Amino acid sequence: MDLDSSLVDLTNTLTSDPKSWHNSHLVSVTQISTSGLLLLLNTARSMRSLVRTTGGDDRLRHRILASVFYEASTRTSCSFQAAMMRLGGTYLHVDGGAGGNTSASKKGETLEDTIRCLECYADVTVLRHPTTGSVQRVALGSGTVKPVINAGDGVGEHPTQALLDLYTIWDELGLSLDVDGGDSTNETKHTGPLVVVLLGDLKHGRTVHSLAKLLARSSIKHELVLRYCAPSSLEMPSHVKEYVGTFPNARQEEYTDMHEAVQGANVLYVTRVQKERFDNVEDYEKVKGAYVVNAKLMSSAPSGMIVMHPLPRVDEIATEVDSDPRACYFREMENGMFVRMAILALILGAP
Amino acid sequence: MDLDSSLVDLTNTLTSDPKSWHNSHLVSVTQISTSGLLLLLNTARSMRSLVRTTGGDDRLRHRILASVFYEASTRTSCSFQAAMMRLGGTYLHVDGGAGGNTSASKKGETLEDTIRCLECYADVTVLRHPTTGSVQRVALGSGTVKPVINAGDGVGEHPTQALLDLYTIWDELGLSLDVDGGDSTNETKHTGPLVVVLLGDLKHGRTVHSLAKLLARSSIKHELVLRYCAPSSLEMPSHVKEYVGTFPNARQEEYTDMHEAVQGANVLYVTRVQKERFDNVEDYEKVKGAYVVNAKLMSSAPSGMIVMHPLPRVDEIATEVDSDPRACYFREMENGMFVRMAILALILGAP
Amino acid sequence: MDLDSSLVDLTNTLTSDPKSWHNSHLVSVTQISTSGLLLLLNTARSMRSLVRTTGGDDRLRHRILASVFYEASTRTSCSFQAAMMRLGGTYLHVDGGAGGNTSASKKGETLEDTIRCLECYADVTVLRHPTTGSVQRVALGSGTVKPVINAGDGVGEHPTQALLDLYTIWDELGLSLDVDGGDSTNETKHTGPLVVVLLGDLKHGRTVHSLAKLLARSSIKHELVLRYCAPSSLEMPSHVKEYVGTFPNARQEEYTDMHEAVQGANVLYVTRVQKERFDNVEDYEKVKGAYVVNAKLMSSAPSGMIVMHPLPRVDEIATEVDSDPRACYFREMENGMFVRMAILALILGAP
Repeated sequence: MDLDSSLVDLTNTLTSDPKSWHNSHLVSVTQISTSGLLLLLNTARSMRSLVRTTGGDDRLRHRILASVFYEASTRTSCSFQAAMMRLGGTYLHVDGGAGGNTSASKKGETLEDTIRCLECYADVTVLRHPTTGSVQRVALGSGTVKPVINAGDGVGEHPTQALLDLYTIWDELGLSLDVDGGDSTNETKHTGPLVVVLLGDLKHGRTVHSLAKLLARSSIKHELVLRYCAPSSLEMPSHVKEYVGTFPNARQEEYTDMHEAVQGANVLYVTRVQKERFDNVEDYEKVKGAYVVNAKLMSSAPSGMIVMHPLPRVDEIATEVDSDPRACYFREMENGMFVRMAILALILGAP
Repeated sequence: MDLDSSLVDLTNTLTSDPKSWHNSHLVSVTQISTSGLLLLLNTARSMRSLVRTTGGDDRLRHRILASVFYEASTRTSCSFQAAMMRLGGTYLHVDGGAGGNTSASKKGETLEDTIRCLECYADVTVLRHPTTGSVQRVALGSGTVKPVINAGDGVGEHPTQALLDLYTIWDELGLSLDVDGGDSTNETKHTGPLVVVLLGDLKHGRTVHSLAKLLARSSIKHELVLRYCAPSSLEMPSHVKEYVGTFPNARQEEYTDMHEAVQGANVLYVTRVQKERFDNVEDYEKVKGAYVVNAKLMSSAPSGMIVMHPLPRVDEIATEVDSDPRACYFREMENGMFVRMAILALILGAP
Repeated sequence: MDLDSSLVDLTNTLTSDPKSWHNSHLVSVTQISTSGLLLLLNTARSMRSLVRTTGGDDRLRHRILASVFYEASTRTSCSFQAAMMRLGGTYLHVDGGAGGNTSASKKGETLEDTIRCLECYADVTVLRHPTTGSVQRVALGSGTVKPVINAGDGVGEHPTQALLDLYTIWDELGLSLDVDGGDSTNETKHTGPLVVVLLGDLKHGRTVHSLAKLLARSSIKHELVLRYCAPSSLEMPSHVKEYVGTFPNARQEEYTDMHEAVQGANVLYVTRVQKERFDNVEDYEKVKGAYVVNAKLMSSAPSGMIVMHPLPRVDEIATEVDSDPRACYFREMENGMFVRMAILALILGAP
């Protein structure tokens, strides 16, 4: 199901005007215009300065976040909670458990009613749910009276992950998204096309699908080259390639050898190749190890190529890479908090 | 077991003098005098103004609530936690699990010791426990050194639920509880008797028992008509009817047809008729659907009749009723936070 | 395994200079010099004044504690969380469950990676883990970038428990640890040797091992007499006795009769004798009840002898003892919060 097509009413409603974010839901990155992305990323950058200098401020004092997770995700929930607290706010955490076992949902309450009740106590809701489209359904239904932020709905969207990935690339490489040539505070260091390698299981990864689409949408000032490097059975789905193909500045290339893929690359985005994704063990054994990023690969990679990973990682990046300055997956993790601080501040009207 | 009779030492100790609330336990509504109810409800109203204007304040800064739930109740625990945070305080949450499985109680620690330990860190405890009378036992035992608030103990009491229901009726209908004819800020809109329909399973509902008793106790300025509308096997127990019967202003009526019951009513309080409460399926099938509140019922009900429900609801109120302005169950939910803010502020000496 | 011997690089790095604590890990009490202990205990005392007068302050405003427990421990986690909030900070709680089942660790993430990720959001981590040495391993590994506090690692260390026990003895008896004869604000009431009875299961208790060692290390101004009173199969291990034996001011005595042991004692430290620790039921039945502290024992004990217990207790101290002013186990519990406030304030640079 292509959720994008059903989100017509959400397209480009979040712009460079902070007022357009105030009290809005955030269920999909398609809501955010290119200039809206610039606002968000610049706001995230100012949040980083804030945390680095004073740890936070009190702009969200007495504001409460309802953090509602029907699927465990320690780092996403902690990231939103920390974001709220860094801005002086607080949170309620509701652990819906696998399948949604709050005390009320066990009694037969609908998801809509549960969220509507929590809104009585809170100012904004962050919702993760295993069912694709459920967050959108709740947010756009008639019952909701406060903003809902999508923290992942099945194979649907996980917009804040895509946004933190975009922010990381933008920040690490010194890119500019400034579409008007205006007063971006971000010094542009990067020149030439932006070459991004997406590595691993590209078939099942919600993260890489969203990132590919978002990079294509924001490829306005830079030529974009997306290199898909995956085992043959785990290739990037055609619906993503078709979407990316509609953007004139975006070029797509396919690789199976990661050593070739990283030549001249600016970004290596790693995901895990899981044994259980293969039909038979033989196919898995053939590719096992062929997509492990280690010191050897890094020694042949460009000196400015950053290595990203949505985490958690298992063995697809050797720990010996962690001390390489190009390894930025922990900075990427930290950026998640800054981007979520920016989103909460914008939605609660205190950017 | 009639807990009221064993609470002699708690009767009417919480009055219109805020000092009487400071550092007191709250285990039963019988502790609160009629003028004490007025103080509480007026304080809850000022809390609503506070939340609506600034989101909260800092009167409970550096105060900690121990939120201890030996039975899951997402909305009651969240409501207390939010109440604390709206006033600048914080909370510790201890999830005792079904039957009380904290790490210490698994080792054989008594409930009294567990609460006594948490009091070392906190300023006030909210306790929910499945055993009737357990909260009272802990609060009145010799070990406790800080206030304990009852958040439900089995079929015993759940005083804050009854109080938020009373506040909702008082607020929605513009009633006055002012026994002295004094300076109530609440404009009295309601005239004539107060007609309240209690609908559904009246036999097992702790909530409707407590509300009936509390309405009777506060029926000083208004004549009260309580209409019990239930399947024949789920009628209001005689101990409740006997208690209500001791108040001269309270009249009691019995109905089985809800369409008749709502005629001339001011309040329709809905509870769920659960299949598992019936001895045989045939009896359930006979009444199934006869107590479902829908648009059809609402079209024949008085224009000023509010619809309440303690939530969660399943199908006993059709969602088509949600958009009816008379449906006030979500406002009732929000009132829970205001009433709990008032209770915490009074007990912690910062009303 | 004697962890102390492997901690050479940590020995005595935390001194009376608050700067030595700033951004340091705390994995073992061996890190703290005798003058460092004095700084910590004096800071804890000032924390008690703070809580007693205003409830807390805002020195850790916008600071976040990651409270990560791979083993349930309600009171240790609540104590750290309350300590953080009393100083104006906040916390993220990660319940790793038995064996470490966060959503990420289920996917195969290492403990090091999990902590490294949470550090992206927080300023300090408190970690409890069932594997001996795991906290030290994480803290001293190359990945960690923020301070880690050990909240118990298997049979290894639980330094804050030992420190709160030392503080309690120091405070209740009016001892002085002042090694330089300087400006201690603590009036010395105690004279003569300090006689401490350690009672119960001395073989398995991490708590009594740590306390014995810590008392020995701090026995500089007072002669120390440690009386081990245990069933013959649950005696103090020789590695502890050997360690204590290296301190010239520390004398060790063995008892099996607790009535004899308490004669002339200043402290009775009680632990539980558990049935499952015995090889056969007969051996347990023989000693059962021989180590239960009750009013009868207290009547023959010195009038100034305090009774301590790490809690939770089951029946090894009769509840009739609770009202005895010498029973200080709930004060001991409260001291845990003051000591943890002091540790957090020192490590976060705001003592």
